[in-house]
Amino acid sequence: MKLSTLSIGDELLFGEVVDSNAASIAARLYDRGVKVQRHLLVGDNEPDIMDAIERLAEWSEAVIVTGGLGPTADDFTARSAAKVTGRRLVLNDEALSHVREFVGAEGGLYHSATERQALIPTKSTIIPNPTGTACGFIITWNGRYLFFLPGVPSEMIRMLDDTVLPFIQERLRQRVTIGTRLFTLFGISEAESDELLRDLPDPESGLSVAFRVSFPTIDVKLRAEGDPDSVAALLQMGGEVVRERLAEFIVAEGGATLDEEVGRLLRESGKSLSLAESCSGGFIAKRLTDIPGSSAYFLEGAVVYSNAAKCRLLQVPKRLIMEKGAVSRDVAEAMARGAREGAGSDLALAVTGVAGPGASEEKPAGTVFIALADGAGCRVEEYHFSGDRRQVRLLTTITALDRLRRYLTTG
Amino acid sequence: MKLSTLSIGDELLFGEVVDSNAASIAARLYDRGVKVQRHLLVGDNEPDIMDAIERLAEWSEAVIVTGGLGPTADDFTARSAAKVTGRRLVLNDEALSHVREFVGAEGGLYHSATERQALIPTKSTIIPNPTGTACGFIITWNGRYLFFLPGVPSEMIRMLDDTVLPFIQERLRQRVTIGTRLFTLFGISEAESDELLRDLPDPESGLSVAFRVSFPTIDVKLRAEGDPDSVAALLQMGGEVVRERLAEFIVAEGGATLDEEVGRLLRESGKSLSLAESCSGGFIAKRLTDIPGSSAYFLEGAVVYSNAAKCRLLQVPKRLIMEKGAVSRDVAEAMARGAREGAGSDLALAVTGVAGPGASEEKPAGTVFIALADGAGCRVEEYHFSGDRRQVRLLTTITALDRLRRYLTTG
Repeated sequence: MKLSTLSIGDELLFGEVVDSNAASIAARLYDRGVKVQRHLLVGDNEPDIMDAIERLAEWSEAVIVTGGLGPTADDFTARSAAKVTGRRLVLNDEALSHVREFVGAEGGLYHSATERQALIPTKSTIIPNPTGTACGFIITWNGRYLFFLPGVPSEMIRMLDDTVLPFIQERLRQRVTIGTRLFTLFGISEAESDELLRDLPDPESGLSVAFRVSFPTIDVKLRAEGDPDSVAALLQMGGEVVRERLAEFIVAEGGATLDEEVGRLLRESGKSLSLAESCSGGFIAKRLTDIPGSSAYFLEGAVVYSNAAKCRLLQVPKRLIMEKGAVSRDVAEAMARGAREGAGSDLALAVTGVAGPGASEEKPAGTVFIALADGAGCRVEEYHFSGDRRQVRLLTTITALDRLRRYLTTG
Repeated sequence: MKLSTLSIGDELLFGEVVDSNAASIAARLYDRGVKVQRHLLVGDNEPDIMDAIERLAEWSEAVIVTGGLGPTADDFTARSAAKVTGRRLVLNDEALSHVREFVGAEGGLYHSATERQALIPTKSTIIPNPTGTACGFIITWNGRYLFFLPGVPSEMIRMLDDTVLPFIQERLRQRVTIGTRLFTLFGISEAESDELLRDLPDPESGLSVAFRVSFPTIDVKLRAEGDPDSVAALLQMGGEVVRERLAEFIVAEGGATLDEEVGRLLRESGKSLSLAESCSGGFIAKRLTDIPGSSAYFLEGAVVYSNAAKCRLLQVPKRLIMEKGAVSRDVAEAMARGAREGAGSDLALAVTGVAGPGASEEKPAGTVFIALADGAGCRVEEYHFSGDRRQVRLLTTITALDRLRRYLTTG
């Protein structure tokens, strides 16, 4: 099926808002085996909207239009759709009762302008909007399917999932199934992982591999199409190959984050954790406490920017800092041991480094020590990250969380 | 000038990557008085690219094309441009020496495939690329200007700013100047700020006001056009009105962030700061230490998730937690006083609250106490934020930083 998308809105055209709907529609369709052919973006004016609908209907068998269904004076989509397809614009009973119910349910003031949202071209099929005022609609015209949805991303996606995608899939009379499997990697480059999986994609069997860098992690997505059994088998086989070759770099699967994975592992292990952060400045604590229920394993963290704080809160000997420097293997170890003893936690993670500015020749920006202490002892690793302050802090934080993940996974 | 944009790339069309170039080009043009008419997105295939260039050149006097200039087999833009405009594709000396220099400078392996990037349609003007391998080019065709730029956002924007925008502005022979002024607000809704500035926009004099919500802050942008003197006067007048009516809600101007503003105020005041965070879990420390040079005023932070940590690190009396609860006015005050005394800092900011889950009837999720201690005493405020865990944590963090901003501004 040839399908195009159309976004409508001055705020998108003038760059005030990034048009994220185009990508979310495309990704959802792609996972169901439909590739978007073209995407067009026009402003809030009738001639451009009408022209765009006409052109896209020439090019494609289906057009998904988002935006311009609101109650204000600059919402022209329904009227433009009626004009292009030679329909009349009438108050639609189904849409009107939804508008009344919804505005009532939300307890807002009821304005007659709101009723404008129930003006729908004749002979349309209504697309219900469970979370907003404006219904969408489907017009069948010259053998083309035209779908109209509101531009608010959350409403649009819900309506797409509930109504538009099932409608399209049914008409595709598709015998192929599409399946995907997602792995998130850290500690390996895109080129290296690509190289290691080079022989995996197989156009004949219907297995493809896509890489997407989301610094500093990499998403690897397996995608298979065919009959349900072969899709399951392909993903099973592909997943095993990925796990075998990239095992230690896989930080999460199925779209989970490293933070969530570390949280899950901590919870399952029954071990408690404390933190001592210098250059990461609270970033590790922030990410761990982003996870609901983290108080079950996370006890406390010390953000020790000053040397005095390292000594007082973590019992790091002042002499050690003077002799070795605050950014050193010994101080990292003392911080981890101090945090663990003070908090009485099973594990402690400590970080000290130079994020920049303030680098010296001996300790250039990017030099970071990460220590992990448990009941048996303490292991410190030295890292040399490249990038600006923001990147070094992010790499430090993710590397520290990954150290914890590896520890909890392999013991 | 009628101008359209075209993005090229399967990764955009399949929704793997959001097409952010369209918005960044549009916003930069809009600030210079040029509105984009349409934006089109097509995949990596020659017929679609050729068709798109032709259509957009019909509609507009200028087309800015991004993407498809790389060295790989799926980069078709230069060849499609040559075919549409009836030019030959030849090795361009200027582009070739740039490619050789750049690849050499980057120390990578030199592949002949890389030289493909120097294949440019004849009679083009080269657009230099200071930060990447692929040069851009300008084709003048049938009285239309066609600009071709790489899709990598950082490279594209640099080339747009350096070459394309000056080129367009020169040809516009524009007598109007466009000026903007940006204010960032916190603690007031979009509707309220809109209401307070309702009389400010003036189409006749050329002053407009745009609001953009970037939760939980709001950007207000004044935009004026006309001759240089009247633009300056309009922005001056408009800026004064905004400052007068919204004074206390303005957290930053000119695109700075609240974090940067707080950092600047702390540095100027010469005061040092310590933090005690419970429900914000290190988020405040993380944001403050994002700012380069923050070690000049930020001494330390305690992320005290457990009650034991509150007692040990901040000297909060255990009895107080038992009697009043960890989320209480008294504990917030004790945390701030404890942090200030322990760290020996001029100021201390403390936060305790329920981000959820784990709310009780008495202390529902969103209940947060924020305390600010200085040499003269301690002030605690109680807040009731709504939203999910993520939103409550963000609102807590921004409100705490805003408390600090207000304190440092008004004394």
